[in-house]
Amino acid sequence: MKIEGNLIVGQSGGPTSVINASLAGVYKTAKDLGVKTVYGMVHGIQGLLNGQYIDMSEHIKEESDIELLKRTPSAYLGSCRYKMPVFEGNEDLYEKVFSILEELNVHYFIYIGGNDSMDTIKQLSDYAAKYGKTQKFIGCPKTIDNDLAITDHTPGFGSAAKYIATSTKELICDALGLAYQKKNVMVIEIMGRNAGWLTGAAALSRDAECPGPDMIYLPELTFDMDDFMARVKALLEKKDAVIVAVSEGIKTAEGKYVFEYGHDSGYVDAFGHKLLGGTASHLCNLIAAETGAKTRAVEFSTLQRAASHISSFTDVQEAFMAGAAAVQATLDGETGKMVLFRRVKDVPYECTTDLYDIHEISNVEKTVPREWINEDGTYVTEAFINYAKPLILGEITPVYVNGVPKHIVLDEDILA
Amino acid sequence: MKIEGNLIVGQSGGPTSVINASLAGVYKTAKDLGVKTVYGMVHGIQGLLNGQYIDMSEHIKEESDIELLKRTPSAYLGSCRYKMPVFEGNEDLYEKVFSILEELNVHYFIYIGGNDSMDTIKQLSDYAAKYGKTQKFIGCPKTIDNDLAITDHTPGFGSAAKYIATSTKELICDALGLAYQKKNVMVIEIMGRNAGWLTGAAALSRDAECPGPDMIYLPELTFDMDDFMARVKALLEKKDAVIVAVSEGIKTAEGKYVFEYGHDSGYVDAFGHKLLGGTASHLCNLIAAETGAKTRAVEFSTLQRAASHISSFTDVQEAFMAGAAAVQATLDGETGKMVLFRRVKDVPYECTTDLYDIHEISNVEKTVPREWINEDGTYVTEAFINYAKPLILGEITPVYVNGVPKHIVLDEDILA
Repeated sequence: MKIEGNLIVGQSGGPTSVINASLAGVYKTAKDLGVKTVYGMVHGIQGLLNGQYIDMSEHIKEESDIELLKRTPSAYLGSCRYKMPVFEGNEDLYEKVFSILEELNVHYFIYIGGNDSMDTIKQLSDYAAKYGKTQKFIGCPKTIDNDLAITDHTPGFGSAAKYIATSTKELICDALGLAYQKKNVMVIEIMGRNAGWLTGAAALSRDAECPGPDMIYLPELTFDMDDFMARVKALLEKKDAVIVAVSEGIKTAEGKYVFEYGHDSGYVDAFGHKLLGGTASHLCNLIAAETGAKTRAVEFSTLQRAASHISSFTDVQEAFMAGAAAVQATLDGETGKMVLFRRVKDVPYECTTDLYDIHEISNVEKTVPREWINEDGTYVTEAFINYAKPLILGEITPVYVNGVPKHIVLDEDILA
Repeated sequence: MKIEGNLIVGQSGGPTSVINASLAGVYKTAKDLGVKTVYGMVHGIQGLLNGQYIDMSEHIKEESDIELLKRTPSAYLGSCRYKMPVFEGNEDLYEKVFSILEELNVHYFIYIGGNDSMDTIKQLSDYAAKYGKTQKFIGCPKTIDNDLAITDHTPGFGSAAKYIATSTKELICDALGLAYQKKNVMVIEIMGRNAGWLTGAAALSRDAECPGPDMIYLPELTFDMDDFMARVKALLEKKDAVIVAVSEGIKTAEGKYVFEYGHDSGYVDAFGHKLLGGTASHLCNLIAAETGAKTRAVEFSTLQRAASHISSFTDVQEAFMAGAAAVQATLDGETGKMVLFRRVKDVPYECTTDLYDIHEISNVEKTVPREWINEDGTYVTEAFINYAKPLILGEITPVYVNGVPKHIVLDEDILA
């Protein structure tokens, strides 16, 4: 294997707890395999186009920095929400990218991101093929949503699922200890607008000590408000504390998000703006009004993608592996491909990386199969649980300094 | 020291991550010192009055159960929100309590809770004194709010503060990695309606890697909406990501909670009920309307009192110590007193328990001193940070099973 030049890596889209573990995998593997300079795009390709990049060796100086990178949430290099336009008609922009790469003697380009980032890899590799450029482009997946096709799962999902399972278990424990001769309903809102992978992970809270949520509503199925309310009422007849987990993206038969009903029923502020309200708080308002129960809406919000203090070790390790595999692939001369995961076995769990043609990775979102949701549409099945459970296993001990986890970050003026 | 009979312990009020560590301290110390039977009130004195109690030895069987108890959030015995009425005119109720105690040969009564629970201890010990009862009554404090007078701090505060500091740091890391050429404002809402101890703990996120929130608003000072908005705008001129931590209880000069403005400005649902809205989401709506920035409201909600996977070891240990001290005190014949903490030294931090006459523990809430808030009213001072920092130090490793922390819980039918 002859190394043809330097390597550049970027991060793009919404971050995960382990997107930096993939970055660590890229950096360490590239250096170990003899790449002279590993550049980092600051704020992805958008930043690169503005001339923002770093030589990673100037910032990641010791092995312990690589360990910290695995424990640092968010995108270390800075992320962007920028999608390269198709290259036809935008050749100037593409030439600009390639001239920066040539200037830095970059031969290998790795982009860690979701669907939009994979599209960027496709565009860049196609452009290179068409215009005789020799640089290699490989995509490394990430998304907490787990909605990428073909790969068994995505780096980032396991840690978000572990956060959700743990927090749900803690919330249920709290609710059961408090509930006494008064009716309480807690609605937990979980990310994933179109795919219910994360919401389903609330079921991983269920074990010998914890009954899990009473009901779980995924966005894959139509949400029937009357049926939901009838079920909540029936549960309240039997018990004092009812806990429901819902996807932020549940929709009624009219195709409207549940949270939109909140927006549309007169919730406007003094400026006439519609209120930004959550699905859980809207449901809580309705439940309180219909049943008189005390309600509480809990949104995991950004915490579910940022709580790296409780990352899944399996996820961290696989994210690192994915970054490492991306480097190996590009040094081997591969281009226009994405790294993915193949599950070798469920019990004991084994997983390996593979490569896939980026052109065949459609923009289709992978949703939870119907057969992994129960007939009522109110819970996930054992098959879902068996799929998700191995992905949350293991912990990576945070390095606590003054009682809070230590991270590694770029200077604010570099990220600006 | 002669042991005169059995001991009963109960938990009351909103739980904390470490209220069960105090229970562990009570149980283990009582058994170690030779108490024959340690009873647990199920759902506090309210449950006891309904005949609900357990013999704890039937449920906490091994040393490892005690370790799990330290790692289990919520109230293991079940909590209640019930305040004993004054005994004058309610002698029947008090006689019922004492007859249950006599039936169980209980001589020692320990109640772990907040202000209302301490009032129960006061009433019971006064009743005993007046009517020649020999039972001893000792209070063991708990509250995440840290608003009890006289004690240096309360068990439960340190763990909630550690959760808040850690989560705030992770959220800020996420926001700074994403912010690029677009304006973002995040408002984090923290518990503590009248006392800003927990909100101030957001400042503990600030260190070499993390700038901390840009502003922190405690409920001790009047919240000036115009001044706040001007400051947010000024910050947005200088940077892309602005992070603000606010107490749920901030109030304007008219004495109205900020979240009430949300309720009062036309937010009613289809049933005419006022919307339950948070302080943070109301501020986010206003900021979005006034500045056009993208906003996100994050509420730590119940998580801040239930996230025992990230408890402060200092807090767990002190909560255990408080429970142990309560047992020692009652066996020594003390009654009508509460355990409290005295800080021996700041550096290195040392803390010890003490006893205080429960009659002198007023119902006054201890709020953050004015001099621990900066002149602008937009941050806590170094003195606050020095006070709070030792309380979040150390971790207690959760026992993870299938990727989630293991707890110890009573059967649901006992808690019902």
